[in-house]
This record gives sequence, structure tokens and C-alpha cells, in this order.
Amino acid sequence: MSEDRLPSRSDNFAEWYNQLVLRAELADYAPVRGCMVVMPYGWALWENIQAALDQRFKATGHVNAAFPMLIPMSFLEKEKEHVEGFSPELAVVTIGGGEKLEEPLVVRPTSETIIGHMYAKWIKSYRDLPVLINLWNSVMRWEMRTRLFLRTAEFYWQEGHTAHATAEEAQAETMQMLDIYADFAENVAAVPVVRGRKSESEKFAGALRSYSIEAMMGDTRALQAATSHNLGENFARAFEIRYLDAANSLQYCWTTSWGLSTRVIGAIIMVHGDEQGLILPPRLAPHQVVIVPIHKTDQEKDAVLQAVAQLEAQLAGFRLKVDRRDGLTPGFKFNDWEMRGVPLRLEVGPKDVAQGTVTFARRDLPGKQGKHSVPQEGVARAVAEELEAVQAALFKRALEFRREHTHQPRTYAEFRQVVEAGWAEAWWCGRRECEAAIKEDTRATTRNIPLDQPSGGGPCIRCGEPATERALFARAY
Amino acid sequence: MSEDRLPSRSDNFAEWYNQLVLRAELADYAPVRGCMVVMPYGWALWENIQAALDQRFKATGHVNAAFPMLIPMSFLEKEKEHVEGFSPELAVVTIGGGEKLEEPLVVRPTSETIIGHMYAKWIKSYRDLPVLINLWNSVMRWEMRTRLFLRTAEFYWQEGHTAHATAEEAQAETMQMLDIYADFAENVAAVPVVRGRKSESEKFAGALRSYSIEAMMGDTRALQAATSHNLGENFARAFEIRYLDAANSLQYCWTTSWGLSTRVIGAIIMVHGDEQGLILPPRLAPHQVVIVPIHKTDQEKDAVLQAVAQLEAQLAGFRLKVDRRDGLTPGFKFNDWEMRGVPLRLEVGPKDVAQGTVTFARRDLPGKQGKHSVPQEGVARAVAEELEAVQAALFKRALEFRREHTHQPRTYAEFRQVVEAGWAEAWWCGRRECEAAIKEDTRATTRNIPLDQPSGGGPCIRCGEPATERALFARAY
Repeated sequence: MSEDRLPSRSDNFAEWYNQLVLRAELADYAPVRGCMVVMPYGWALWENIQAALDQRFKATGHVNAAFPMLIPMSFLEKEKEHVEGFSPELAVVTIGGGEKLEEPLVVRPTSETIIGHMYAKWIKSYRDLPVLINLWNSVMRWEMRTRLFLRTAEFYWQEGHTAHATAEEAQAETMQMLDIYADFAENVAAVPVVRGRKSESEKFAGALRSYSIEAMMGDTRALQAATSHNLGENFARAFEIRYLDAANSLQYCWTTSWGLSTRVIGAIIMVHGDEQGLILPPRLAPHQVVIVPIHKTDQEKDAVLQAVAQLEAQLAGFRLKVDRRDGLTPGFKFNDWEMRGVPLRLEVGPKDVAQGTVTFARRDLPGKQGKHSVPQEGVARAVAEELEAVQAALFKRALEFRREHTHQPRTYAEFRQVVEAGWAEAWWCGRRECEAAIKEDTRATTRNIPLDQPSGGGPCIRCGEPATERALFARAY
Repeated sequence: MSEDRLPSRSDNFAEWYNQLVLRAELADYAPVRGCMVVMPYGWALWENIQAALDQRFKATGHVNAAFPMLIPMSFLEKEKEHVEGFSPELAVVTIGGGEKLEEPLVVRPTSETIIGHMYAKWIKSYRDLPVLINLWNSVMRWEMRTRLFLRTAEFYWQEGHTAHATAEEAQAETMQMLDIYADFAENVAAVPVVRGRKSESEKFAGALRSYSIEAMMGDTRALQAATSHNLGENFARAFEIRYLDAANSLQYCWTTSWGLSTRVIGAIIMVHGDEQGLILPPRLAPHQVVIVPIHKTDQEKDAVLQAVAQLEAQLAGFRLKVDRRDGLTPGFKFNDWEMRGVPLRLEVGPKDVAQGTVTFARRDLPGKQGKHSVPQEGVARAVAEELEAVQAALFKRALEFRREHTHQPRTYAEFRQVVEAGWAEAWWCGRRECEAAIKEDTRATTRNIPLDQPSGGGPCIRCGEPATERALFARAY
């Protein structure tokens, strides 16, 4: 077994992550540079993420649609900042049906431009607004250094694209979607996040204002888990998205876009995982519960499997896996499902059968601490309570970890020290020069300017000039 | 209104179809040659199709995953028939991240090759089998003549890919998936289909045996609604997909693939639609029921909207739309929802309020024939029954239409005549020459060799040589 042990999380976080993704069969390297295969276990997790988000999008009036994966190169060139931001990362189709294309087509890196083209065609009047469309698809950005889920050339995501009559509505939509992402992250993925505005240098190419949710990983680095952009009139002017208002006068629309990707799977792994492997939040786990039957003799086996079948029937409302594999020891199975992060294990042995009990083992609590015996009768309710307890405990632990590693340095020397292994909240003058110098000095970047701000102001952490906003600085994925 | 009328279905079926797809806002032409935008109403229909199929796939042990959209060109070249079949249709990426690629990448036309590569890596032993994976994605085939949903360069589909230890298991899987498609088509989409084997010339590039379900459209032409392929050992040999059997000897796997695409939306439109527009089967309709409030005075409006709100609460279990739009007449709304194919309309006017009733209007029965008054109390049950009645009536009508237009010609002269406006079931010697000559003469092709065969044999419909199988011939989409 020793060659099968995961690399140590505390000694080598990066290698622990890489090996865990592969061994838990979440994803594999594809034979195309920088691309991944999302394996069934990883995709089942993504399907649960999709369901939780899709429900929230639809409850707020959004509808899904599908736009082409190929976009004419000329479309990207219509918005100046957009093309500058994306052109180094494009995959370009130059041949179709055996012939050289007159105009090259890019594999979409994001869909603002083709959305802009179609919205200009569809939107005529204020009665057509708002348009609230979301897409579930994959996009392609040629990346030099890739890591499974965190940074791959092709990745899976949703991209929302909305058009509104007024600046206020577009801003309200931008903030609504940021809040939906935060709600999902905290209440479904059990990942605490900081909502905030991106700095000018970190905002989306072509946006008026970008917002993000930022999460602290288990190595204290930050990960941007989702973004929401107010695009202002930028894309509406580039693509002529206009409407006749109630007074019959032609106006530009205000548009937004917002996205969350399979990167969030990386966050879930790095926030909750431990030396034994994954710990999946119950609300997203492909298997919420695994039952491991324990028996030696044939007679024991019959009795145990009968009890397991009864439990299975009682637990039909959960995402349940019964591990009936032959020829593997219970200990092997325990390790296997621990590595795969199943939040709750139920063990059923001859003693349980005799006593009418089942042994619960919580994934998030090590050894005996997480184990207790529960009556088989009414087990569904006990499972529901235990899963809720795991969900809450994961969030609480992640929040405490973030608090412990978030600092309020008073001096730049202190700042430099704390961002070695944590986050820094500090006054920032807002100038690109200070932001760039800090990055150069420390590899920490502005993650965002949190929406929750103290009143007043203070001296910029680097230059000492008066500042009115506190920014969140960290080294990031 | 006259300029808004649909083209006549009986006079110009093709133009009726094109205009209906656009006006019902199912899809629109994209600014990329041969591509479409699937609009929210069309995508909602596809989501319901996906849900019905996905449930059936999972119930038979399949799991979903995601594979890259780009495939190295060399992969396609490993299976000789496969590359011959697909190379004229490829879109090719030659530039990535600003540089010319050493090896061009093709946008997947289908994923057998990259699946083969990964399965060869994953599968070691008989214990790893079967592998039962499905993908929901889009693929790209450069098409010269395109039509929305029926034939587009990019289209949306699912592709299942399985690997098995034995020929028997692969054949059983191939037939199981064909049966699942037939079950979906008939019992969910209300589209009767003929299950059968494809001829050698019509089979999938690289398959051992291909099977299809074929449906008759409203103009009597055939549409292949899904295919299921037994790939034999062809891809296993090309990609070295091998396993150690229980006796520790290395064996090739047997693989299958099977797919159903957004083409099936074209079938639903062309099987059920009428002069007024779409008729959607209740089990797939994005809106199963639309409520249209009818009122003139403000007082009537209050009373009617109150009754509508009560109905809405009772009908929470259905996919329900309440059309509260102001400034539009009930007549306009009736036409609008008829065009969009909502299977059941509920009208609520002052008289209904006074009598505690609601007026049902079935989409599939014209005028008064489909209308009757129902008590508001217990309306949910009446709606459920009416929707089931619509579902059954649509299937029955389509089946009768197919029977009326399916012929058993005895002579080739008769054959030539019946395929002008119908299907022909006829003995066929199985030779490519006869198949090709028939196509040349009549534009009818072998759709499939139905699984349901009479015993015995007869003379080939064209050459008169002895034949043991009857084939289905038709002009096809």
C-alpha cells in the first residue's frame, strides 16, 4: 500500500492536489496539450454544481440557450480591450471541409461578441428587455502552464449574458449574480468567500466594472471562484445593441456577463481535502453516503447483506453507494471512500445486525471522534442530520482557517511578511503603480476590493498616500 | 396579420418548416456558416429531451463524462474507414496561442478516437469492464447545405461509448441502446419509429454493424432519429484497447457507440406540426399548459386574475405559463401559443369565474372539437388526464399517417411510384449495386433493414434475385 499513499498535503500541497485529482478519478490529462478529460466521478460532481446553480438562475428569471463554438475573428476585433485581452490565447480554425477559410474562426474563449451580434438582431424595443440568457458550455484559452481544473486550455463553465434598458438595472443584475455565486459557494460548496470589486488592472477585458468572489485554499493562496461583470455600454456600442424606448428614441443597451467554471472543483478539493484525500460537501457529493458491509463467514454475509438491503431501501432519498465488491477488505474500502471524499460512511457488521444498529463514520472527523452507533430504525433521519452536520462543520472549519490566515498589516514590512502565508487586508491608494510594485515585491496581487468596507480611510500600505478603500491582497491560483 | 401567416404546410412543407423554427423562436441562423443559435424555447425543449434520455441512460448503468473538443489529426487516421468517412467534413485548428501548431487539431466530428486513446489507458483487466460512458456535447461537421436542426455544421447531441469483454455483451449493449431510443421516441416524443440495421453502405464509418430508428415526417420523407453502432474490435485494434481476462491472457475489447442529436427536434416539428404551427408532445413541451385570462373591464380583470392565481397554485406540478401580457387580445395570444405548440390552453373569462369553471382547448384538435368546460375544483387531475390524452392522440395520429403511407410494392414500377410520396417495404438482395441503382432511379435509399422481419424470402424488388430480408426504402432528410 505504501506506494499508493498520497503525497503529503502539508509538505507538498501542489503534488498532493495533482495526485488526488488523478487517484480519485476526477479528471485525467488528455492527449491534447493543456486539455483534460473530466472523468465520471468529477463530472457527477460538476452535474451537482450545475443543478444547484441552474436552479438559482431559473428562479431569478434566466433561461438557457446555446451559441456556436466558433466565432469569426472580426467579431473579437470590434471591442478594442476585449481583443487585446484574448488574442494571445486563441485557438484558430483556418480550414473547413478541406478548404482554407476566407475568414479564420476562433474557438470561443468567451461569447460576449457573438452574443452581441445576435442581441443586436433580436432586441428592437424596450418591451424586449431585459434579455436574461445563460449558456452551459466549454471555452478554449491557449494556456502555457496548465493544471487539472485550475487552469486548462479547454474548461467547462456557464456564461450568463444579459441586456438591460438602464445602467441601474445592469448594475443590479451584476450584483444579483455575484450574490448568487456567493450563496452557492457558501451554502452549497461550504466554501467561504469574499465578495468584492476587481481593480482596474484585474478586471475583465471590455468590462466597465468586474466583481469576484475569492476563496482561501488550504495553502492560504486565493482562488477566484466566479466573476460578474457590468459591461456598461461597451459591447452594446461595439455591436449596435439598441432599443427604442417608450418615447420612441433609440438607446444603447447595458449588458452584463458572469461566469463560474470547473475551477470551482479545484477550490472544493483545496479547501476541504486532507491528508487522506477529498472531503466533499454533502450537498454536492456524488455519493453522500457509502455503506460498507463487514462479514467473514457466509452466514454473516447473508445476515449483513440482508440488513444492508433494508438500509438501502430506507435511504432511497440520498445519493447512496453500497460497496458490495468482493475480494477487498473493509479497511481497503474505508481508505478508498475516504480518498474519494464521501462525507458519511455506514458500516454494517455482524454485531450491528445483532443489535439492530449501524455504525456511522464521518469523513470530516478522524478516527473514533467521528464514529458512533445508530439504531437501524429511523436511520434516514439520522443520516439527514449527520450530513447537515458535516456540511456545517466544513464551512465553519474553512471560515476559521481563513480568519486565522487573514491579516491587517500596519506597515509594508509586516505586509510583505504576512502575504508569505496568508491574506492581507490593507488600505490601498488605487493606483496601478502601487499594485504593480506590490506584485513585483511579493507576488501578491489585489484579489478584490471587498464590498464590506470600514468607514473612513488610511494611508496606502505601500506609498502612504491617503486611501479610501481597503483591498484584499494575496498570492493567487 | 396576413404577412405574419406561416407558409402553407401542404403547399410548401420545407418553407413552412424553416419559417416555423424561426417564428416559434426555437433557433436562429448564426453568423458562422452553417451554424445555428438554439434559442431559449428550443433549448428548453432540448433540456427536456436530455432529461428523459439521461434518466434512461443512468438507469441502465451509464455515467456521464467530458472529453476534449479538439482531437489530434493523427488519431483520426488510425481507423481507416473512420478517417475516410469524416475527413471531408473536418474543421481544423492550425493556430494556437499565436503560433502555428506542429500537429493540426480537428474539432471533434465524433469522439470514438479520443475515447479509444483514453480507454486504452484506463482499461487493464476484465474487472474494469464494462466501461459505460456517455457525453453530452456538440460536434462539428462541415456541411455544404444546412437546415436548422436537421443539418448544421455544429450540432448538439449525446454520444455514448462503451467497452466490453465479449462480442455478445457489445451486441446486447448496441441493441439495448437502440431500444432506449425507440422507447424515448415513441413514449416521450410520440414519434413512431422503425428499428432496424443499416445497410453496409449506410453504416457508420468504422462500425461492424449500425442500427437506427427511422421516423416518417409529415411530408412522408424519412428521418434517421438516432443510431447505435456495434464497433466490433475495429477501434480496439486501432487504439490498443485491451484487457487481461480471468485466465491472464490479453484480449481486445469490443466497443459500441450510440447517439441522438438536436435533429430529433426537427422530427418533432415535422411529425406533429400543422398549418397553425408547432404541436409539442406534453412530455417534452417547455410549457405544457398556458393560461390566457380574458377580461374587458377592470372589475372583470380583478376577478379573472384572482381565479387565475388560484388555478396557478393548483397546477404547480405542471410546466405552466400564465400569459399576463397587457395590450394583446386573447385572439392574438391564442394564435401565438398555438404557433408555439403548447399542448393545452386554459381560458378564464368572466363567465368561467361566475360558473367556477375553466375552458380547456386542446392544441391537437381544431376549434370547438378540442374545447370543453371543466370545474376549477380538481383542475389538476383534469389537466393531467387531458395532457395524457394529447400525448396518446399525437402518437396514434402519427402511427396512422405512417401506416397510410407505407407500401408493399410487388413490382419495381410500383416501387418507383410509391416512393414518390411514401415508404416502401420490399425484398432486397443486399447487394450495393441494387441499392445504388434504386437511389439513382428514385432518390430513395435503404433506411434500414427492420428488426421485425417476416419469415421466408422473395425476389429482390429491383433485380429479382432471391432475397431473404425486407428493407425499408424512402427518400430521407
